[in-house]
Amino acid sequence: MTELELRIREAIIDVPDFPIKGVIYKDITPIFQKPELCKAIVDAMAASFSSFKPDAVLGMESRGFLLGMPLAIVLDVPFIMVRKKGKLPRSSYESSYALEYGTATIEMHKDALRTGQRVLIHDDVLATGGTAAAGADLVKQAGAEIAGFSFISELSFLKGRDRLASFSAPISTFVSY
Amino acid sequence: MTELELRIREAIIDVPDFPIKGVIYKDITPIFQKPELCKAIVDAMAASFSSFKPDAVLGMESRGFLLGMPLAIVLDVPFIMVRKKGKLPRSSYESSYALEYGTATIEMHKDALRTGQRVLIHDDVLATGGTAAAGADLVKQAGAEIAGFSFISELSFLKGRDRLASFSAPISTFVSY
Repeated sequence: MTELELRIREAIIDVPDFPIKGVIYKDITPIFQKPELCKAIVDAMAASFSSFKPDAVLGMESRGFLLGMPLAIVLDVPFIMVRKKGKLPRSSYESSYALEYGTATIEMHKDALRTGQRVLIHDDVLATGGTAAAGADLVKQAGAEIAGFSFISELSFLKGRDRLASFSAPISTFVSY
Repeated sequence: MTELELRIREAIIDVPDFPIKGVIYKDITPIFQKPELCKAIVDAMAASFSSFKPDAVLGMESRGFLLGMPLAIVLDVPFIMVRKKGKLPRSSYESSYALEYGTATIEMHKDALRTGQRVLIHDDVLATGGTAAAGADLVKQAGAEIAGFSFISELSFLKGRDRLASFSAPISTFVSY
């Protein structure tokens, strides 16, 4: 285990029975209360994609905004917001994905990316991969390419990596449960 | 007008008739696509509070996460998430405020702040001030103090400054409409 992984694991709090009984929720909010740890994670994310620097970082609303924006600043590339449907004011691509009950739809401005750009998709946690796959679908609709996926942590029993396999892009996480 | 203000104004796009007919929406999403501009804004926000450095930055979900987190990293203080009701997993304070139709409720973990800490509240835009005032209420519930309010832009005709006046804290914005 790396020192960074250890620091992340120590910051995460187990919350029993959230959001429903029997689930142990991994609460990552304390990570964001440690500025040095956040900086270390952002620098490590940037380093892991330094050999093929992306042209943009796509951040998934809302927790993907937290380290996605500083990551874009460190990489010196645009940060593109992916938002829940109805919040972006201009012409947008949209993509829907299944939730346990019903569906969710996310959007990205059509002028946010150009054909051929290589995009790094960031969110805080990789769970089922549904949100990240919908983000990747937005990138594809814009004619851009997936440079990779970057998460802080991963709930591996939910098989998110399998869901993202079809995009043939590297997937980076620091902590796996 | 400062050079930074000019750069922010040039990035913002006017969107007529959003969210409803007759309104000209100020779309700030292009700011986040300019990493150097984001860095300049964050550094300027940090500088404007350098004489009385806060103990924490409170970021309002979700666009307050974007520059709030890098601001906390630059100031080397904890970033505290304020989220919409039901999203935080542990014991939380809550505060409600009026919307045009109905009310909204936001939450903050009870262990996020300690008595007497001085907190900088950040959001992207100061409009009516309802969200920021509710954030300040959460800070007060925790026994902490308001060090100030920091926004990128301000819709001054909505009188947000009047709404926040009772907190007797400095209010910083770069662009006013």
